[in-house]
Order: sequence, then C-alpha cells, then structure tokens
Amino acid sequence: MGEKVNPSRRSLIGWGGAGLALGAAVAGGAVAMAEAGGDADPVAADTGGAVPFHGAHQAGIATPVQDRLHFAAFDVKTDDRAEFVQLLKDWTAAARRMTAGKAVGEGAYGGLAEAPPDDTGEALGLKPSRLTLTIGFGPSLFGKFGLDGQRPAALVDLPGFPGDNLDAARTGGDLCVQACADDPQVAVHAIRNLARIGFGKVAIRWSQLGFGKTSSTTPDAQTPRNLMGFKDGTRNIAGTETDRLKKFVWSADGDGPAWMSGGSYLVARRIRMNIETWDRTSLQEQEDVFGRDKGEGAPVGKAKEHDAPFLKAMKPDAHVRLAHPDSNGGITILRRGYSFTDGTDGLGRLDAGLFFLAYMRDVRKGFIPLQRRLSASDALNEYIQHVGSAVFAVPPGVRDTDDWWGRALFSGSAKSSESAESAEGA
Amino acid sequence: MGEKVNPSRRSLIGWGGAGLALGAAVAGGAVAMAEAGGDADPVAADTGGAVPFHGAHQAGIATPVQDRLHFAAFDVKTDDRAEFVQLLKDWTAAARRMTAGKAVGEGAYGGLAEAPPDDTGEALGLKPSRLTLTIGFGPSLFGKFGLDGQRPAALVDLPGFPGDNLDAARTGGDLCVQACADDPQVAVHAIRNLARIGFGKVAIRWSQLGFGKTSSTTPDAQTPRNLMGFKDGTRNIAGTETDRLKKFVWSADGDGPAWMSGGSYLVARRIRMNIETWDRTSLQEQEDVFGRDKGEGAPVGKAKEHDAPFLKAMKPDAHVRLAHPDSNGGITILRRGYSFTDGTDGLGRLDAGLFFLAYMRDVRKGFIPLQRRLSASDALNEYIQHVGSAVFAVPPGVRDTDDWWGRALFSGSAKSSESAESAEGA
Ligand code: HEM
Ligand code: HEM
Repeated sequence: MGEKVNPSRRSLIGWGGAGLALGAAVAGGAVAMAEAGGDADPVAADTGGAVPFHGAHQAGIATPVQDRLHFAAFDVKTDDRAEFVQLLKDWTAAARRMTAGKAVGEGAYGGLAEAPPDDTGEALGLKPSRLTLTIGFGPSLFGKFGLDGQRPAALVDLPGFPGDNLDAARTGGDLCVQACADDPQVAVHAIRNLARIGFGKVAIRWSQLGFGKTSSTTPDAQTPRNLMGFKDGTRNIAGTETDRLKKFVWSADGDGPAWMSGGSYLVARRIRMNIETWDRTSLQEQEDVFGRDKGEGAPVGKAKEHDAPFLKAMKPDAHVRLAHPDSNGGITILRRGYSFTDGTDGLGRLDAGLFFLAYMRDVRKGFIPLQRRLSASDALNEYIQHVGSAVFAVPPGVRDTDDWWGRALFSGSAKSSESAESAEGA
Repeated sequence: MGEKVNPSRRSLIGWGGAGLALGAAVAGGAVAMAEAGGDADPVAADTGGAVPFHGAHQAGIATPVQDRLHFAAFDVKTDDRAEFVQLLKDWTAAARRMTAGKAVGEGAYGGLAEAPPDDTGEALGLKPSRLTLTIGFGPSLFGKFGLDGQRPAALVDLPGFPGDNLDAARTGGDLCVQACADDPQVAVHAIRNLARIGFGKVAIRWSQLGFGKTSSTTPDAQTPRNLMGFKDGTRNIAGTETDRLKKFVWSADGDGPAWMSGGSYLVARRIRMNIETWDRTSLQEQEDVFGRDKGEGAPVGKAKEHDAPFLKAMKPDAHVRLAHPDSNGGITILRRGYSFTDGTDGLGRLDAGLFFLAYMRDVRKGFIPLQRRLSASDALNEYIQHVGSAVFAVPPGVRDTDDWWGRALFSGSAKSSESAESAEGA
C-alpha cells in the first residue's frame, strides 16, 4: 500500500528575504517520499497525506476519490520531438515533487532574486492533500512526432451522439492532466505549475474545476451526491476490486501497443444540468428518472442503497436500468466525476452539472456503446446536455525516479505491430 | 459565543421510498439550533459546526473566514412589494434552517411524491460546515418598492477607476447573497436553493465560486496565500477586535438610516490576475510589488510576518505601502476575499484571480479613496485587472425567529430623515 507521508509543502528552497529559515526547518521531513510499486493503488485515508506517485498504474484512477478536481486539456505548440520529450520529463519530475507535497524545483532556483521562482508558491505551507496527477494522450497527439504507428485502436475518436451540443472550446486536446486533491488550492497549483513549465511548448486548451466528487471508489465511504441530489457512484468499481479493475479498467498485454500495458482510457464529458427545470420536477419523476429513491439511494422496490437492483421494477427508460451491466451485455466503467458550478449563463441560469470522467480498458467496449444507449433512450436526457467531450489514452504508471510519463511511447520500444488497427466502433 | 451544534444535514422530512427512516433517526438532533444574540460574532473552530444565524450583526463578516465561497448577485423581477417582502421572509426561514445544517422546508413537503421536493437534496448528509449566508441590498434596489428615501448616503455608486475593465455581466445587482462554508457543496447548495425559492421574483444576475480563502479574520490561524503566492490578509481586522470592528466595519446609530444600524457595506470586485506574466516575473520584482517577502510574508527589512511594516523601506508604489492605514489617513477595511479559477479565456490563459470582498462602515471613507489611490499608483496594476464590480448595503443581523432579512427597511420604521444625503464622494 505504500508508505504514507505527511510533509508540509514548505520545502521551497531559495526564497530570499527574512523568511528563508521557515523552509529549511521542515525541508528534511519533506524528503521522505513514498515510492510504492506494485499493482495495488495507494490508499491514503486522511486528507492530508501523500499518495505515492510511482507504481504499475498511474494514481488518480483506482485511488480513493479526492474531494476536488482541476482538469486541463492542452494543445501541443511545438513540433520538435526532443523538446516535447524534455517537457514530459520535466513534467514528471515536477509531478513527482508536487504529489509528495514539495514545491517544483529543488534548489534549482538557488535564491536568485533576479529569476522567477521555480514554483508559484500558493501551495507553500499546505499539505500534500492526496494530490494525484494523471496524464493522458489525446487522439490528435498521434498525428504528431511520428507517433502514428503507436495509436491504440482502443483510442477511437468519439462519434457524435444524439443530443450532443458540444462546444469546440471545451472539446478535445492533445494531452490532459487530471489533478485531484482534497484541497482545491493544491490541485489548481499543480495544473498551473505544469502549464507554466510547458510555456511555449504546450498551452491550456480548456480546463475545468470540480468542487465536489460525485463518485467514490471506496465502498465503505458515504456515497457523495450529485447536483441532482442523488447519491452517485453507488455501483462503481471500488479501488480494491483487483479483479474488476483488471477486467474493465487496465489495458493488458496484447490489448494493443505494449506502451499502453497497465494504462487505461479516459472519457471526459462536460454534462450541463438543466438545474432550474429539474428543481421544479416532482420527486416521483426524479426517482423514476434514475430508478432509485432520493433519500437512501435504494433501487426501486429495495430498502437499502447497496441492495442489488431489480431492473424490471424500474421504468424502461430509467438511467440505472439502461446503464446497469445486466441490461447491456456487461459493460462496466469506472466513474470518477465531479460536480461543477461555473457561474451563470446569459439567461440567469446556473452553468452547473457533472464533469463526467470515466476510465475503461477500451473506449469501443465501454463508453461508446453505453452512451449510444443512454443518448437514445435515457429519461435523464430531458434534464441534461453534453456540452464538452474528450478522450485520452492514459499510459501506465511511472515506475521509478528514472522513468517518465510516456517513456515507452517515445522510446519506440512498443510493439508497433499491435497498434493502430482499423478503428472499429468509431 | 453561542452554542455549537453538529447536526448532520439529514433532517429532510418527507422523502418517500425505502430511505425514509434514515432522516428520522437524526432529525431530533438537528433541531438544536444555536441562536446567539449579542455583539460578538460566533466562532466555530471546527469545520463541521454550525455558525449561529441570529445576532446583532449578520454572520459571514467578522466570522472566521470559511474555506469556500459561492456568491450570487440577483436582479429583482417583481414589482409587487408584498411579494418581495414575502420572498425575504421565505429566504430568511430557509437561511435559518440551512445554516443550522437542516434542509429547506420542514415537513412542508409532507411526502407528496407529486410535488417537487422542498430541498434540492445535494447537501443531505453533509455537515453544516460553518455555512453563513449574508444578504446585501444594491443601490438599484432603492429605486424600487418606494425605498428611495431609505438609501443610505454611505451606499454610493462606485465611480470608475483608472484601469477598470468591467464586464457588465459581472457587475451590479439589486441584491446579493454571500454563502461561505468549509464545504463548497454546502455553499453551492444554499445559493441554488435561495434562487429556486426566488424563482419568478428574482433571478441570478451573476455568481462567483471561490475555491480558497485569501484572507483570515482569525489572527492565530495560518495566513492563506493568494494565487500570486503571497500570504494575504496578514494585517486584516480580526473578528475578535471589537473596537476596530466598531470603528471601521459596523454602521452605527446616526451613521445613516436607522435600519442600517449594526449593518455594514460590502464592495465586491472580480480581479483577474495576469497569471502567466506574473509567473515569469523575478522574485525580486514580485516582492517589490507587495513590499513583503514571499516565503514568510514579512514586510521589507523585517523578519516576521506580523512585524509592523516600515513603509519607507518599501518602494513608493508597493501595494502594502499604498494600502497601509498609516500612509492614507487611517483608512481601514475588513477583507474577506477568495481565489477563483474559472477555466480558460479564449487565449489559453487561466481566467483566475482574486474575488475581492471587503466590508466597511462607509464606502465613501473605505473602498473609494483607497482604490482611487491604488488604481492610480499601485505597482500591482501591471499584473491585475478589475473585471467585475458591485456594492451593497448589508443590513444588521436577524434577531430572532420573528425577525427577517430587511424587516426594518421594509417596515418603514427607519428614520428616513437621516438617509439619502447628497452622495458626496460618488
Ligand atoms: C449528468 C449526467 C449523469 C448523472 C446525473 C448520473 C447519475 C447517476 C446516478 C445517480 C446513478 C445511480 C447510482 C450509482 O450506481 O452510481 C448512476 C449510475 C450509473 N451511471 Fe450515471 N449519471 C450521468 C451520466 C452518465 C453517463 C454519461 C454514463 C455513461 C455513459 C453513466 C453511467 C452510469 C453507470 C454505468 C451507472 C451504474 C449503473 C449500475 O450498475 O447500476 N452515467 N448515474
Ligand atoms: C488581486 C488584487 C490584490 C492582491 C493580490 C492583494 C494582495 C495583498 C497582499 C499580499 C497584502 C499583504 C498582506 C496583508 O496584509 O494582507 C495586501 C494588503 C492589503 N491590501 Fe491588497 N491585494 C489586492 C487588491 C487590493 C484592493 C483592491 C484593495 C483595496 C482597495 C486592497 C487593500 C489592501 C489593504 C488595506 C492591505 C493591508 C495593508 C496594511 O495594512 O499593511 N488590496 N494585499
């Protein structure tokens, strides 16, 4: 499970002025960094701790869902492969430090008052807050840097679905980084510093703040509620369910190019809720829409949230009935979404909803068939609209301090014969 | 200081289905509601507790600053005075319940599956999280409902300042509600439910989420950092400084119309930071801009954050030098701002900054002269831009269960002779 550490984020080295002593006093403590390998994802129960960065899989997927999210999609601005590879190395080094509760750059800044600080500083003094940073590569990246042969067949472009109303400014991206933490300042700080390191090489295409988790990968925790007031994530894959993770989430040897082995695929959808209409809908209709009751979250006709759903007791168009594996040939995804509220639209309505994040072993066998079904028939469609969309290949974890995000992809060690099969399902 | 209670937010009464028992089990506990009167603002140290709603002053001003903010400005849509008064009463009742950790509506919903639930439900199961709800009345409200004679002279329209780049869609408002809580879901829930109750009578004009506090009114707490990486709020008025609150924050008898006695004035400014430029600025320049060092937050030439600043050691245009009371005739305000990050602008730059909130006894003697000075000379201006603005009269606290937000204003019991003096300073 990995060592759990609680360093404070104070080890900013080299800030001049009278405050210098402050950093030094705790820098020693902050050096102890958890470096767990192995298959199991780290579990850090308290909200201040550090989640190990190294491992077979990237953290931030099976990791117990943190409270807050800052998600950013980036466009690549350089066409120099070496420069891009260097950026991935620099990002990895920064991510390794930040997830351990340390500032970006170790002494590199060296107290030079004439230089910009290596770290922007707003997380100084904050705990690691279980920060995880998870990188993904979008389909468009494989058109660059001679990577065409490496694109996994499982990473298909998403087709259009009925009802989609996608905003190009919130769609796509060559790269993404998902930052999750229990303190939003820590998540915002991490994305901002990666953007800063990437200046001139990548630029943020769009970003999304999530103020509250809507899923849980911890079966014993209280299930969070989404902005429709319903418990969300009840029947999710738990981070401890090694078998289901293996079957439905982690890309395995032989699934596609070797560089993706141990990775996963991420679908992100910004789903706006028509909050005002929903709030004027009767309780009966609300419960019919999901096929669960609002207070307890129990399936129709059952008493408890975790009772097995009896799908036939639900309306034919109930969300849970349509989404449940038993009614759709076993499709199973790991959900990791967050609620968002981004002010108001021009019509005085809250721009709020669910930033849907789901991880799966193959987009063609996970999100696409499921969303085909939901977009065609789900009773929920009356109250939601998909307004942003992206899909990414999420490489396996960084193994050790010599490894870096995307190394196998860029080292050409992949079995390229297995990649880029005809994109069936697209 | 008032009784501290820790009810869970489970007392949603009347939700049908199998989950009903869940609410009932804890409803009793949730009834104990703190009703503190007196002058002192409530202090709730742990993040789960309830802040008393009743008192001489509204909570949310001198109250220890909570971690998260959801702020909304509303436009009035009705011209029926009785209907608007009823809304204020309904809002007060809902605010009283929500700040105590209870759902909106007590039994009123009565289990009718055919009706929309009284409460939207997403805060069910969450703690009160020190939620405070603070109402304010904007200048434009006094043009309605025959309130012209009641407008306080201290509530002047803000003049334009050099460098202002105000977006009309984020400026003004007849009313505002500031929701602060340690859990953002609780703050978002509160604003949403007030908007819902107000449907047809008021509509949200704009709203702002704040993910991290940038000020503290608790002198012994760790000073939070803003998105420029500096400690912010070091020399703020503490919630325990009764004398300075009386002198600089609370409107007193004789200051203006009687209905404002015990109230305050709120200035809200959405201040965008040019993050990308700031992040490429040298440490020296950053420290010069503020007149404090970045690590410790100590004033130039001093060792510790809370050492008294020696203003002449700072650059003439340093923010702290210009803003400090000693250099500007004693002007003092209570700051209560939050950091925001609202995605990206069309140019790939983070739309991030400081949502500045400040309370004061008189806008003409607080924000206006201070901002005149800062907007003219502050070194910080190179890195920021004011993009939204509003000002509100914040009435005194709700005294007891018979009282409601704005009662004195609408009961015409105010000494109208003292109000609406010629708006000097505007
Ligand atoms: C705003 C949009 C959505 C909302 C509010 C929502 C809400 C919910 C809720 C309340 C549940 C029941 C509790 C649970 O088991 O988690 C649920 C289940 C589920 N949802 Fe959604 N959902 C949304 C969109 C989607 C989308 C786009 C997908 C996939 C394409 C999806 C897939 C699922 C799945 C697989 C389940 C579990 C079904 C089961 O095994 O019983 N949902 N959702
Ligand atoms: C993005 C904009 C701003 C930033 C980043 C900022 C940041 C800071 C910082 C870091 C300090 C020093 C620590 C402290 O005592 O709190 C400070 C002090 C202060 N600021 Fe600002 N500030 C901003 C805008 C404003 C505005 C618009 C006003 C009022 C018009 C203001 C009024 C003050 C005052 C009164 C002080 C205390 C000075 C003293 O007594 O030493 N600030 N600010």
